[in-house]
Amino acid sequence: VSAEKRAEFRRLHHGSEPLLLPNAWDVASALALADAGFAAVATTSLGVAAAAGRPDATGSTLAETLRLARTAERISCPFSIDLEGGFGSEPAGVADVAERVAEAGVAGINLEDGRQDGTLADLDRQAEIIQAVKERVPDLFVNARTDAFWLKVDNPLETALARISVFAQAGADGVFVPAIADEADIRAVVGRSTVPVNVLYLPGGHTVAALGELGVRRVSLGSLPFRAALHATVQTARAVAAGEAVEGGIPGYDDIVQLIGEG
Amino acid sequence: VSAEKRAEFRRLHHGSEPLLLPNAWDVASALALADAGFAAVATTSLGVAAAAGRPDATGSTLAETLRLARTAERISCPFSIDLEGGFGSEPAGVADVAERVAEAGVAGINLEDGRQDGTLADLDRQAEIIQAVKERVPDLFVNARTDAFWLKVDNPLETALARISVFAQAGADGVFVPAIADEADIRAVVGRSTVPVNVLYLPGGHTVAALGELGVRRVSLGSLPFRAALHATVQTARAVAAGEAVEGGIPGYDDIVQLIGEG
Repeated sequence: VSAEKRAEFRRLHHGSEPLLLPNAWDVASALALADAGFAAVATTSLGVAAAAGRPDATGSTLAETLRLARTAERISCPFSIDLEGGFGSEPAGVADVAERVAEAGVAGINLEDGRQDGTLADLDRQAEIIQAVKERVPDLFVNARTDAFWLKVDNPLETALARISVFAQAGADGVFVPAIADEADIRAVVGRSTVPVNVLYLPGGHTVAALGELGVRRVSLGSLPFRAALHATVQTARAVAAGEAVEGGIPGYDDIVQLIGEG
Repeated sequence: VSAEKRAEFRRLHHGSEPLLLPNAWDVASALALADAGFAAVATTSLGVAAAAGRPDATGSTLAETLRLARTAERISCPFSIDLEGGFGSEPAGVADVAERVAEAGVAGINLEDGRQDGTLADLDRQAEIIQAVKERVPDLFVNARTDAFWLKVDNPLETALARISVFAQAGADGVFVPAIADEADIRAVVGRSTVPVNVLYLPGGHTVAALGELGVRRVSLGSLPFRAALHATVQTARAVAAGEAVEGGIPGYDDIVQLIGEG
C-alpha cells in the first residue's frame, strides 16, 4: 500500500494542475482533510508544535510527528510529513527518522534548511542529509525546502537558486521555496529547477491556477488551515457569548465519531 | 496560584450571568481561548480523543488529558478538565487521577456517569467516586455530569433529578446535564439542585442569557469549538482550491508564535 501511495504522490506532482496540499496537525484534521477529498494531505510543523504548546522549528516535536505519521495507514490518499530540519544534524540520524516515518506509511517528507537561530544550514551538510535519506528510503518523496525567502536572507533569489540546484543533485524529488511571492522570482526558480517546484499559498497572492501557469507543481497551505481553525474556535465561542448564531455547516458530534471510527 | 484560581472558578458560578465555558482540546486552543478573554476555559473529551485519533468517552486518553492539564500553569484564568468517567471505575483510582490534574494546577474537573456501553454507571459507585475525589482534593471544583438525557435513557428527567441529588450529597460542587433542552426540564433540574447547574449550549436553542433566566449557572460549549475548527480547516482548504478568498481575521504565523511563546 505504501509503495502505491508513494507512486501516486509522485504522479500528483505532474498533473495538469498543481498539487494543492492542505496541511493537518493532528489525527482529526488529517482525517477531515482526507475525507474532504483532497488528493493528498501534508502536515504543518507550526500546528503540530503549537498543539503541543511548543515553539515551531525547534526540533522539539519528534514524538508528536512520529505519532501523526501513523495516520498514513488510516487515510486512503498519500500523506506527507513535515520533518522540520530532520530532528538532528547528522545525516544518519535524519535518515533514521525518515525511515521511521516511511515505515509508518507516509509517502513523502519535507526537510528544511532554516535553523533555529535564523540562519541557513551549511549547504554541503544539508546535501549530505538529503543524500543519506534518499539512500535509506529511495521511494520516499523528499521535498527539500530552502528558507532563503522565509528567513529573508540577503539575495534570497540567488541563494535559493544555488540551494535548490544542490538539493536536486543530492537526490531531492522536489524543492520548496516558502515565502517566495514575486512572479519574476517564481519564474526564475521554476526555470532553474530540474524537479517539481513547491510554493506556499499566500492569502491575497497568486491563486493556485495562476501559480500553475507560472510552472509551480505543488502548492502548500502551510499553517493556514491550522490558523483558520484556531480563529474559528475563538469566533464560535464569541458568537455564543454574544447571543449570535454560530456558523452553519459545522459537523455534528456523530459526524466526528464516524470520522474517527474505532481508532 | 492554584488556590486563587479555584476560588475564582467557584465564584464564577455565582455571577450575574451564567459562566460561559469554551472548550479546548490541545494547548494551542486552550491558550487561544484564554487569550481571547474568556473568564475560564474547559476541555472537550471528544476533541482530545479525536485529535489523538481515538474514540470519545472510552477512557483511552489519560496521557493526553494529563498533558493538557499542564496548560493550567500557562493561562491566567481557571482551567477545568474533562475526565470522562474518571479513567477507571475504582474510587481510589479516579481520586489519583483527580489529584494529578489538581497538582498540574487545574481548577475543576468533569466526571460523567455515562459508560462506554451506553448505560449509566451504578449510582452508588458513582457517588463513592465523587466522595473519594472530594476527600482527596477538597478545593477542586467537581462538576458531576449525568448522561441521562445525553444517552436518551427512559424517563431522563426523573433519572437526572435522582442522580444530581445523590451527586450533590456526595460532595459535587456542581451538576452537569448535557443534552437537556426543554425549558420545563431545565426549570425542574434548577429547582431541585442544591448546587450550580451546568447545561450544554445547543446551536439554535436557548441563548446563554435565556439559560441564565432559567437559573442555569454555567453553560458549556462542549465539542462545538472543536467541530467549528475542523469545519474551518476544510472550508479554508476548499476556498483556496476554488480560487476564492479565505476568510478575514485569521491570525498570522507570528501571532501564533507569540501566543505559544517559548513553551
